[in-house]
Amino acid sequence: MNYQSEVSPDARKFKSIGTRPLRPDGLDKVTGKARFGADVSAPGMLHGVILRSPHAHALIKSIDTSKAEAAEGVHAVVTRADFGSDFDNPDVMDNVMAGKKALYDGHTVAAIAASSEAAARKALKLIKVEYEVLKGVTDVDAALAPDAPILHEDMVPDGVDPAPTKPTNIAHRHEFGHGDVDKGFKEADIIIERSFKTEAAHQGYIEPHACLATLGSDGRGELWCCTQGHYYVRELCADLLKIEESQLRVTASEIGGGFGGKTTVFIEPVALALSKKSNRPVKIVMSRNEVFRASGPTASSSVDVKIGVKKDGRITAGFANLRYQGGAYPGSPVEFGAMSAFACYDLENVKTVGYDIVTNRPKQVAYRAPGAPMAAFAIESVVDELAKKVGMDPIEFRLKNASSAGSKSSYGPTFSDIGLALTLETAKNHPHYSAPLGPNQGRGVACGFWFNFGGQTSVSLAVNADGTVGLSVGTPDIGGSRASLSLMVAEEMGVEYEKVRAIIADTASLGYNDVTDGSRVTFASGIAAIEASRNACKVMCARAAKTWGIPEDAVVWEDGHAKPAGSNAGDFKPMSLVEIAANASSTGGPIAGHHEINADGAGVSFSTHLADVEVDPETGRAEVVRYTVFQDAGKAIHPSYVEGQFQGGAVQGIGWALNEEYIYDNEGRLQNPGFLDYRIPVASDLPMIDAVILEVPNPGHPYGVRGVGETSIVPPLATVANALAAAAGIRMTDIPMSPPKVLKAIDEAK
Amino acid sequence: MNYQSEVSPDARKFKSIGTRPLRPDGLDKVTGKARFGADVSAPGMLHGVILRSPHAHALIKSIDTSKAEAAEGVHAVVTRADFGSDFDNPDVMDNVMAGKKALYDGHTVAAIAASSEAAARKALKLIKVEYEVLKGVTDVDAALAPDAPILHEDMVPDGVDPAPTKPTNIAHRHEFGHGDVDKGFKEADIIIERSFKTEAAHQGYIEPHACLATLGSDGRGELWCCTQGHYYVRELCADLLKIEESQLRVTASEIGGGFGGKTTVFIEPVALALSKKSNRPVKIVMSRNEVFRASGPTASSSVDVKIGVKKDGRITAGFANLRYQGGAYPGSPVEFGAMSAFACYDLENVKTVGYDIVTNRPKQVAYRAPGAPMAAFAIESVVDELAKKVGMDPIEFRLKNASSAGSKSSYGPTFSDIGLALTLETAKNHPHYSAPLGPNQGRGVACGFWFNFGGQTSVSLAVNADGTVGLSVGTPDIGGSRASLSLMVAEEMGVEYEKVRAIIADTASLGYNDVTDGSRVTFASGIAAIEASRNACKVMCARAAKTWGIPEDAVVWEDGHAKPAGSNAGDFKPMSLVEIAANASSTGGPIAGHHEINADGAGVSFSTHLADVEVDPETGRAEVVRYTVFQDAGKAIHPSYVEGQFQGGAVQGIGWALNEEYIYDNEGRLQNPGFLDYRIPVASDLPMIDAVILEVPNPGHPYGVRGVGETSIVPPLATVANALAAAAGIRMTDIPMSPPKVLKAIDEAK
Repeated sequence: MNYQSEVSPDARKFKSIGTRPLRPDGLDKVTGKARFGADVSAPGMLHGVILRSPHAHALIKSIDTSKAEAAEGVHAVVTRADFGSDFDNPDVMDNVMAGKKALYDGHTVAAIAASSEAAARKALKLIKVEYEVLKGVTDVDAALAPDAPILHEDMVPDGVDPAPTKPTNIAHRHEFGHGDVDKGFKEADIIIERSFKTEAAHQGYIEPHACLATLGSDGRGELWCCTQGHYYVRELCADLLKIEESQLRVTASEIGGGFGGKTTVFIEPVALALSKKSNRPVKIVMSRNEVFRASGPTASSSVDVKIGVKKDGRITAGFANLRYQGGAYPGSPVEFGAMSAFACYDLENVKTVGYDIVTNRPKQVAYRAPGAPMAAFAIESVVDELAKKVGMDPIEFRLKNASSAGSKSSYGPTFSDIGLALTLETAKNHPHYSAPLGPNQGRGVACGFWFNFGGQTSVSLAVNADGTVGLSVGTPDIGGSRASLSLMVAEEMGVEYEKVRAIIADTASLGYNDVTDGSRVTFASGIAAIEASRNACKVMCARAAKTWGIPEDAVVWEDGHAKPAGSNAGDFKPMSLVEIAANASSTGGPIAGHHEINADGAGVSFSTHLADVEVDPETGRAEVVRYTVFQDAGKAIHPSYVEGQFQGGAVQGIGWALNEEYIYDNEGRLQNPGFLDYRIPVASDLPMIDAVILEVPNPGHPYGVRGVGETSIVPPLATVANALAAAAGIRMTDIPMSPPKVLKAIDEAK
Repeated sequence: MNYQSEVSPDARKFKSIGTRPLRPDGLDKVTGKARFGADVSAPGMLHGVILRSPHAHALIKSIDTSKAEAAEGVHAVVTRADFGSDFDNPDVMDNVMAGKKALYDGHTVAAIAASSEAAARKALKLIKVEYEVLKGVTDVDAALAPDAPILHEDMVPDGVDPAPTKPTNIAHRHEFGHGDVDKGFKEADIIIERSFKTEAAHQGYIEPHACLATLGSDGRGELWCCTQGHYYVRELCADLLKIEESQLRVTASEIGGGFGGKTTVFIEPVALALSKKSNRPVKIVMSRNEVFRASGPTASSSVDVKIGVKKDGRITAGFANLRYQGGAYPGSPVEFGAMSAFACYDLENVKTVGYDIVTNRPKQVAYRAPGAPMAAFAIESVVDELAKKVGMDPIEFRLKNASSAGSKSSYGPTFSDIGLALTLETAKNHPHYSAPLGPNQGRGVACGFWFNFGGQTSVSLAVNADGTVGLSVGTPDIGGSRASLSLMVAEEMGVEYEKVRAIIADTASLGYNDVTDGSRVTFASGIAAIEASRNACKVMCARAAKTWGIPEDAVVWEDGHAKPAGSNAGDFKPMSLVEIAANASSTGGPIAGHHEINADGAGVSFSTHLADVEVDPETGRAEVVRYTVFQDAGKAIHPSYVEGQFQGGAVQGIGWALNEEYIYDNEGRLQNPGFLDYRIPVASDLPMIDAVILEVPNPGHPYGVRGVGETSIVPPLATVANALAAAAGIRMTDIPMSPPKVLKAIDEAK
């Protein structure tokens, strides 16, 4: 799909796009009316609870559920034996319900459905599990040691040549790049090599996973759950429960945050299995403890970086070795890390190698720009050092090496029009960059990149008799897409935004939609919404033509009206959408528009972040005192939401940089599974994040939209580290840069 | 729309159509999993109860809700003052919540939402209503008396010329016919004139009305309710609550029977008003008492008939004066009664006059072929007498006068191919018609007619990646339409019926749909489902063409496969739906089909019924001992459901004929608002109803479908009366023919 002609400068003037109307879900959310995952129930509903492994690594020798089954109020107990075999997604199955081994603290071992949660919890204690506890490993580097405990004896690493002769914890090896890095390093005047580590961070959504499931013996079921992708939930559950996809109707509830973490299933197949066995509806709601121990987080990482530069600041070669742990099963985002690591730079010689490694931790789940922040932390930290070494301003240094239109990216494709240089130049000229700093303060800069996805999307809309428009999309709204898609429909159809009502349709009511991820929705569902609008406008033109008795192609849609066009069309008063809608019954029936697409052409997105950090030399506490995000949105459909995305990504990145971490004890038990001990930044920890929207249109979208949701979490780790280095003179290579670690580094530097 | 070429004999051989697969909602219904109107709840939900007038006719002088508002647990009290003014549907508003007057026993006067039903009921007693009780009238003929109490002083009768000089209870006058009846009666050798009355009958659905509503101060709401038409519920509620249609998302629950009675609103706007006032979700569930007193029923009627015949049995003229009471507001189905009365007969001279009359009864609601059974009772009783008078077999007599292709109907249009004669001939040759009768038994025959509706319908379907098909329709399934529509999709797409899953989409997920009524769904939604299937098949052909690299028009859809067609298409192996579906992502994204239509061409439908009735001369109890329905279905999509419709209509008609009635006391209070005293026939009261499906294709539908749901309730009243006349030698003109009335008639005849 190419909309180059539509996004060329001055191609169109927008009426709705770029305005900031009230969010449609606002009142429901602040008044408590919005229905989240836990907010539905059904007559005869049972409550499901889950028995979780207390061991990080253990053989499950036997499970005796007989006493639990006989307990008062208990209707069903399920273990892995209640699921079949031969799955399309065996790792998802294993993660949802442990098989022969429990592979992490919190791994599901059994589940109970009872008439009350109390009865279920009481019965939980009656399940006898015989474990043989094994040595575990939770650190990604330790998992690579020759004597490391092996999680999957039969796992054959993919992409490792020659294949290892004995089992390892490596699941995949990925390699990207071009040119000759050895030659590049030889040409370098200065080379810096550093190693970095980042801890796992949880997506930290407010709403724990929750669902209500029914499944009959005829294989027909319904599932209500909070998810970013109910069609994918349907696919996974159908696989795990051995039912046909279309037999399971999945409705996505309002969602209290996802950030990538609600893109798979945890409790949903368990609730369905319990429902099938008990022949009752079953609700499961995770506790926060369970959310931390057994959902999310993103991968922890260990990254080695080597970059060489000429004295003039031109990078001659870049190399990175990235090791990400994906938790107990393959699937860390190391491939994205290896692809994105050097995407900001136009390099002749570049190579990245990524290893996907399993450890005794919960299976990692996507987290906003999955894999990219850890890589950017490493690369942008070294770039910062190099700029200093060659005596260049860090923005100038980056501009000298920045990717631009025509650059061959480090992961393969050649970039077309991109906004990286614009973000750097805007940052350089922004008042923030030249503002004076206080004592113990330092300023940092870093860049970030994200691919943005397209993908499969179905959109339907209906023009109601009263001239309002009902918009039906299948991509859960995690960042304002009901508003942005409604704005696009309003723009195309020439109606007020307030007349367009968007809803998230369930899997049975609308065709297939990929998961809401990769910042794809405003782009891909946007194209589908625009094309569906255009189709509806064509129908309305045809209705006007029928009314006027002129050919359909003699009518065009303009400013919310069907208008006769062309010399032979005749002289008729333009007919408004409201008039056409009111007469729809007599001109042919309901008016609708539909579009299905597998959208490509999602424009890549870049950002530059500026942070001022103040370090307390007594405690090691680092505080972000000023922060500005400069990011290319392609075209900001609803600027307030775009700013919100910029701010939210920055905030999550700052939390990851400074405080958030998974703390395991020696037995691999998570020590901080709660918001008191897992420290997410709150409003009082942060300054207002300034957001500067830049717009380099993406020709893959009619309005030039690029995804905006993820790039903003990529630079903060390095931005804060670079600012901290400037403030305290210490180069932190280990995330989070929590007070004890910073204090230690300050002490060591003295 | 004309599908003449498709329905011509041997035009196609069906694979799925005409088979009898399991009903898709069966397991859910027998296991209790199906969710009906009362089966949803929401966090913080309140329970709404309704204060109803104990008076049939009373001025509401004041309502004091202050004590109720202060009662424990009470969150909101609403009266008419909480609704606005100036409605598009003022009578619906008045019926939902009384204005200046309470117009019938059970009329809603106020409503309370409280934290429990008990608290709400307790508070109900604290509402003080000051009534001025007026004289009322519940009988349709009494309502026409010169001194009758007047319900609406300002009502101007429509169609009455000259207009009456003082207020009356006549709302409308309708006249139909052609020729010159005076001339026709002059030509007659025999003339019979009779007067008939029928009592009101309730639709008798098992499930009382129930709903759950939320409505915010921003005018956005959600409504879950049991209804035959959730789009119409949306329209009415939007009008009564003064909100935009698209702001209200209405979901139709599974429905426990409707039969026309769930085509309007009662409690839904009240629940919304209570929710808006309390800012909480509100559930209201009617009791059976409330259902009888304040929902449904159909009209009671008083009909005068005059028919003249030549000695050879040819009818020379027919005249009927029909007076139906519509309850407290205009809207009795007398127009349909006047239109359909003589539809079975090809008459030169015919005239019907219908009066729509208001009385102090609940506003009548559609009941299966609304208006037609009462008219048919009168006409078919007289026809039966006439046949005897001229010494002809009653079927022969009807065949001599029967409407056929080319007949100008009594209500205007000229019939095309119709099945009346076929039903009569089949009945005549059926073993039932010549079977011997026992003592006190008699056999009756009567015919019936129903128009059948088309109307507005939107259908969408999606082909899932696993080759199943999700079908999304907006017409609630009251008679098996999920099965019949799935069968049509299966037929068109060449997939197994079991692979098609139909759901009823909510108002926000699919374009507009008219109410499920007029036996329109298998016809109109059927056309839309077929056309949507054809559109999806076109998409699949295009995907195959893309894969093969040949033009789209070189591919056709046959037997579930895309096949190259034409000399230049090339030699490719046909591609199955499953293969195309699996590759959809790489050939362009999701595959869907859509269609919106305002369908016309619904074929009229006729039936002939045979009944054997045994009368106990001691008690007057009449029992139907054998019953056979002969009806033209056009094309029976799922014959078991068609037979079920034939049987169900007959059963409801038999109940109406023999037992069901609204019994009012002198003050206009309903005396039998419960299933113990309002006697619906149960299985032990009835023989198995035999159903004979006949098929005269309707060229308005691709497969020849005619509506089948309503015609079957039209003949039973007369069929049973005619059989009873044959059995006991008495001509009953007053429905129901309950034992006391029959016994009295027997005694009088002696």
